[in-house]
Amino acid sequence: MEKEGTEMVEETEHMIVKNGAKDPQNAISASDSKEMRAVVLTGFGGLNKLKVTKKPMPEPQEGEVKIRVKACGLNFLDLMVRQGNIDNPPKTPLVPGFECSGIVESMGENASGFEIGDRVMAFVNYSAWAEVVCTPVDWVYKIPDEMTFPEAAAFCVNFVAAYMMLFEVANLREGMSVLVHSAGGGVGQAVTQLCATVPNVTIFGTASPFKHEAIRHYVTHLLDRNADYVAEVRKISPEGVDIVLDCLCGENTGKGLGLLKPLGTYILYGSSNMVTGETKSFFSFAKSWWQVEKVNPIKLYEENKVMAGFSLLSLLFKQGGCSQVKTAVQALLNLYNHKKIKPLVDSLWALEEVKEAMQRIHDRGNIGKLILDMEKSPTPLMANDSTETSEAGEEEEEQEGDNDNKERMPFIQ
Amino acid sequence: MEKEGTEMVEETEHMIVKNGAKDPQNAISASDSKEMRAVVLTGFGGLNKLKVTKKPMPEPQEGEVKIRVKACGLNFLDLMVRQGNIDNPPKTPLVPGFECSGIVESMGENASGFEIGDRVMAFVNYSAWAEVVCTPVDWVYKIPDEMTFPEAAAFCVNFVAAYMMLFEVANLREGMSVLVHSAGGGVGQAVTQLCATVPNVTIFGTASPFKHEAIRHYVTHLLDRNADYVAEVRKISPEGVDIVLDCLCGENTGKGLGLLKPLGTYILYGSSNMVTGETKSFFSFAKSWWQVEKVNPIKLYEENKVMAGFSLLSLLFKQGGCSQVKTAVQALLNLYNHKKIKPLVDSLWALEEVKEAMQRIHDRGNIGKLILDMEKSPTPLMANDSTETSEAGEEEEEQEGDNDNKERMPFIQ
Repeated sequence: MEKEGTEMVEETEHMIVKNGAKDPQNAISASDSKEMRAVVLTGFGGLNKLKVTKKPMPEPQEGEVKIRVKACGLNFLDLMVRQGNIDNPPKTPLVPGFECSGIVESMGENASGFEIGDRVMAFVNYSAWAEVVCTPVDWVYKIPDEMTFPEAAAFCVNFVAAYMMLFEVANLREGMSVLVHSAGGGVGQAVTQLCATVPNVTIFGTASPFKHEAIRHYVTHLLDRNADYVAEVRKISPEGVDIVLDCLCGENTGKGLGLLKPLGTYILYGSSNMVTGETKSFFSFAKSWWQVEKVNPIKLYEENKVMAGFSLLSLLFKQGGCSQVKTAVQALLNLYNHKKIKPLVDSLWALEEVKEAMQRIHDRGNIGKLILDMEKSPTPLMANDSTETSEAGEEEEEQEGDNDNKERMPFIQ
Repeated sequence: MEKEGTEMVEETEHMIVKNGAKDPQNAISASDSKEMRAVVLTGFGGLNKLKVTKKPMPEPQEGEVKIRVKACGLNFLDLMVRQGNIDNPPKTPLVPGFECSGIVESMGENASGFEIGDRVMAFVNYSAWAEVVCTPVDWVYKIPDEMTFPEAAAFCVNFVAAYMMLFEVANLREGMSVLVHSAGGGVGQAVTQLCATVPNVTIFGTASPFKHEAIRHYVTHLLDRNADYVAEVRKISPEGVDIVLDCLCGENTGKGLGLLKPLGTYILYGSSNMVTGETKSFFSFAKSWWQVEKVNPIKLYEENKVMAGFSLLSLLFKQGGCSQVKTAVQALLNLYNHKKIKPLVDSLWALEEVKEAMQRIHDRGNIGKLILDMEKSPTPLMANDSTETSEAGEEEEEQEGDNDNKERMPFIQ
């Protein structure tokens, strides 16, 4: 293990030199070991605010682990960050990204539990999209030998969110029913796989029709995302469902609460995959987000209902929930080791392809997770349909066209 | 068993004759076997609206069980019903009461699962406070041989509500903390006993100081019900608690949500014991009930919080939740058989003492459950302090005095 880790680190350093040389406008005079490549958001806005550039090599502070990154997860929240479309946005320039996998390169003071060369996955409070990341030791987890780095980069945010929502907030048990939107997205895939670990769970999942064939075996009742999902669910299950996982918000809060059986739980979730591939534009999303109706607790009392909100990144980065998250990660790795769950990677992208990757999420093209792969070089295949669409986030009107017929990219894993 | 049941039925019939003879103004010419004694609410209002009178003997309809009642539970909701202070109040005259215990006397068509003479407890959708009750077979449960009838009459509403809130809505687990108001009341006692079945649960409970000594061994941190409980909890646990069970509503919803740890659950509950002994007057209660602030789901999202409402009687009588309730009852009887829980009976009252019993709940005098005992005769001890207080529900101003020093009644079990 350690030997393999060391070799991989060397390979990666070699890549930096090579790629650095290809990018003269970002060249920095310091020696290569003092620098790394990273995606930088120069200001809030469209895709043109993203650049791949050299940054000073970070060193681990007290309690931190330094990781040589192999793969990073791309989440819908990253698109919102790019837009500055989040509560209390940080200052730009910044390096985006909340999760990565890689190899432990060194440890800061008072950081223990890892050896140099350990294969790990980690949460990062921004700055994940870089060749090297330093993050608190409590947010780092060893990964099984058979888990690939792209799988590991697809694991943390989506599976932990899905697990905590289903088993800690909603108390999923045998025989229950679950409605999940974007069943083909990162969280959607994690939700459906975790539901399958409980006997006799019925899953209602919305997705664009072109995804249905690919995800049919995960979902009991596949619904067209463009259809009236309330009516569709009622047709199949007049009494409603036990759990609604809502990443749409707005009027969907009322719809979701209305669909609950007695003692059912509605969860509004966001954090990472809030609306993966399921909003027509940022403008309409922001509108629905802020126009959500408030709920009277007495209504919940009269109807025996539960309304919850779940934000994994708030839990971890603002509320100190690292021990709760660690417990969930351990349970999930146990399920992975027993081959009950497996992250579904949609596609791998070079750092330089981050704009195309973001556009793919925006256009709802993905089935599973998009990964930035540090060892991948940009490919000419990138000059495809996704770059021809309007630039995500710069549009302010609803984009009426549907991308359901868009072909999936040729480099899908 | 059957023999004992038969004997007890005979004894009860003997009592009807005897008591009927004492109550000439309500004497009905029909033969005794066609009549029974019952508490009747003649109209919504104060205690003077309650009368013990003869009613025609009910016969079981299809799917119903006829029960010769031995004991009935008295809940705070019964006081609200008396006032007409509930959503969609039924028409008067009516027989109040939602739970009883007794002996199966006969079965309607298509009702199975019981034998004549079975000792049972049951939910009843009104009409429990009578010598004979007919109720759907799905709401009837056999009781263990060692469970007394008063215990059984104290079991259904309080323990099922507490169980479902803690284990189905809130997902109580090892190491969590719970805040419960009225820790000395019926639901409060059930909550604290059920919390003790889970390792390392910390219970914060509010109660009037005069009850503290009696319930000290059930509650980790006893708080004076007149103190600022938010500040008291924060002093002991600055990070808050995992579960808040609120029977107060109004501004307490915001306080309760504010006290939650991340992923914590606030439950507004009502049904039976909504405000047992914890409101100064019905007027102030109604005010706080309707003035509760609505909650924005996005706030729950940002703070990782769960807000729930729980009404057992809505679940059972309006929403068809009898199979969920039956599952809870089975789990609870299992805990009872293993001596993990035991209903705490505050006091036994004759039917004719229902006014004094209601006054006692209103004055927050009870520790545990008040029971109407069919075999109890009114006692001269009833002419005590509770009858000297203002009539519950007829006051419209806040009753400022506190009853903390009021002596407990001499007939406490």
